[in-house]
Amino acid sequence: MTRVVVLAGGYGGAKLSHGLTLLAEAPGSDLELSVIVNTGDDLELHGLLVCPDLDTVMYTLAGLANEATGWGVRDETWSAREMLERYGQETWFGLGDRDIATHLVRSKLMRGGARLTEVEAELTSALGVGAHLLPMTDDIVRTHLRTDEGWLPFQDYFVRRHHADDVHEVHIHGIEHAEVTHEALHAIAAADRILIAPSNPFVSVGPILSVPGMLDALLVAPAPIVAVSPIIGGTAVRGPADRMFVTLGGESSALGVACHYVERYPGLLDGIVIDEVDADKADAIASLGLAVRTAQTLMQSDDDRRELASTTLSFAQALSG
Amino acid sequence: MTRVVVLAGGYGGAKLSHGLTLLAEAPGSDLELSVIVNTGDDLELHGLLVCPDLDTVMYTLAGLANEATGWGVRDETWSAREMLERYGQETWFGLGDRDIATHLVRSKLMRGGARLTEVEAELTSALGVGAHLLPMTDDIVRTHLRTDEGWLPFQDYFVRRHHADDVHEVHIHGIEHAEVTHEALHAIAAADRILIAPSNPFVSVGPILSVPGMLDALLVAPAPIVAVSPIIGGTAVRGPADRMFVTLGGESSALGVACHYVERYPGLLDGIVIDEVDADKADAIASLGLAVRTAQTLMQSDDDRRELASTTLSFAQALSG
Repeated sequence: MTRVVVLAGGYGGAKLSHGLTLLAEAPGSDLELSVIVNTGDDLELHGLLVCPDLDTVMYTLAGLANEATGWGVRDETWSAREMLERYGQETWFGLGDRDIATHLVRSKLMRGGARLTEVEAELTSALGVGAHLLPMTDDIVRTHLRTDEGWLPFQDYFVRRHHADDVHEVHIHGIEHAEVTHEALHAIAAADRILIAPSNPFVSVGPILSVPGMLDALLVAPAPIVAVSPIIGGTAVRGPADRMFVTLGGESSALGVACHYVERYPGLLDGIVIDEVDADKADAIASLGLAVRTAQTLMQSDDDRRELASTTLSFAQALSG
Repeated sequence: MTRVVVLAGGYGGAKLSHGLTLLAEAPGSDLELSVIVNTGDDLELHGLLVCPDLDTVMYTLAGLANEATGWGVRDETWSAREMLERYGQETWFGLGDRDIATHLVRSKLMRGGARLTEVEAELTSALGVGAHLLPMTDDIVRTHLRTDEGWLPFQDYFVRRHHADDVHEVHIHGIEHAEVTHEALHAIAAADRILIAPSNPFVSVGPILSVPGMLDALLVAPAPIVAVSPIIGGTAVRGPADRMFVTLGGESSALGVACHYVERYPGLLDGIVIDEVDADKADAIASLGLAVRTAQTLMQSDDDRRELASTTLSFAQALSG
């Protein structure tokens, strides 16, 4: 059994996790995958608990993701949204009809007293997802961003305002009282390899690492920890990570990603996978004390995902022991 | 201003109420309509409060009703239901995607502390419904039916088991602690005419009349009270009212309807509208002390609805003062 843990946000986290499940599904594979997912982006809409990152990972691993949009369910319909508009409800965060079913089941289970971790286990099991989806915490935490417009809840910034604002500060409401789950702690302690997905370091991976107990667990974990850079050739594949490097300090480059992790979380990373186009940064990154592997990191096809997952895993394996 | 109050269940209540709103919308009309609606059929599904009778009346008055099914919203989609099935949820009570939006808004408002009456005012206003939709109570009451299979919640009997069971007894859980709303009391006291829709006397009108305070308010109301028979030629237009007359005592006929109201609620009715095909019952009904009007009571077209509403109103007017 090779136990792999991935720390993941939504988009990049879902793709790398999908590559890993493709490996896990190969004949003879002994790979067991746990994905620890950011919940700082979660929100309440129409009385329902919506967990965008968890859902993006789940739908992707279940083969239900809408590849065109990068979020939501494929073959989606929007009837409820139309009707919600008639009722004068805010619909800037688009809940598709199939997606709503997920939030209905989740919200009902949680009102019944289930922990989010238990809920996700039930949802993913029903959709035939083999990987363990582990919320970073069962407690309610919410990422807020300070912009020129003041503090904004994450989805207000990201969806309603199309992440157009400069971000000057990140605060995760409730994080000081949050606890890492025993499922996440167990997965980290038992892991043979730990990967940090090419997710936004500030608002996807950052919240995960800020859950009290999470970083300590990672620092003492026996497994090597390898990150995949979400910045390719200076820009983010998707989302505002590149602009955040500018406004939050640092450099929007593979080197900037490496510096960010090394400076903020000393001793966390053993290595980093950067894109081939960033090969010129390898020496500078190595001088930070990190092992470096270059690879084709843009995950467009299933083959891309599988290939990057395989490369990252073997890189981590080479760093273990 | 002619203030009309209708006591209504879902199907027949919606159609007669629709006929009345068609009259109200006519140029020069001074008709103001309040519909007091049965809530004994309400249920919780997927954590949402669903009010089938209120919704059928609302969708019908808003011009959104699915005329083919007699319930739900037209141009409906069923994506959430498909997904709920994937999650292993019970889906025997079909919630369409547009319909779910209604329940989401209602449930959110109620969790925020709104009374059901306030919620319905907001929903109907958003959909441009001019009539006042008044739940018979803001308290939670639930109709249960004793069958050969034991006691069944109403929708289990009606939808899940297709109202195939014989009904031996009706009990409305919570009714002893329920209160009639001040909005319903006010509408009744101020009414110029009060109509009882051609709804099931046992499980639609019965629950309304059993809310503590409702019957007393009706008995002292100055307005004439006229019922429309839901039984035409011995059978119910829709649903199990005819079979209930057999198993709960009485006769499935226009005369049976009149007897039911006269015996159970002495002094309530001033008159009854029966179908032309039941004209042979008129004398027997008159001997019970009720005024009788025959009319074409099957409401297939909008014209049918308007015509029956008009006939019933003028019949009531003739009985007033």
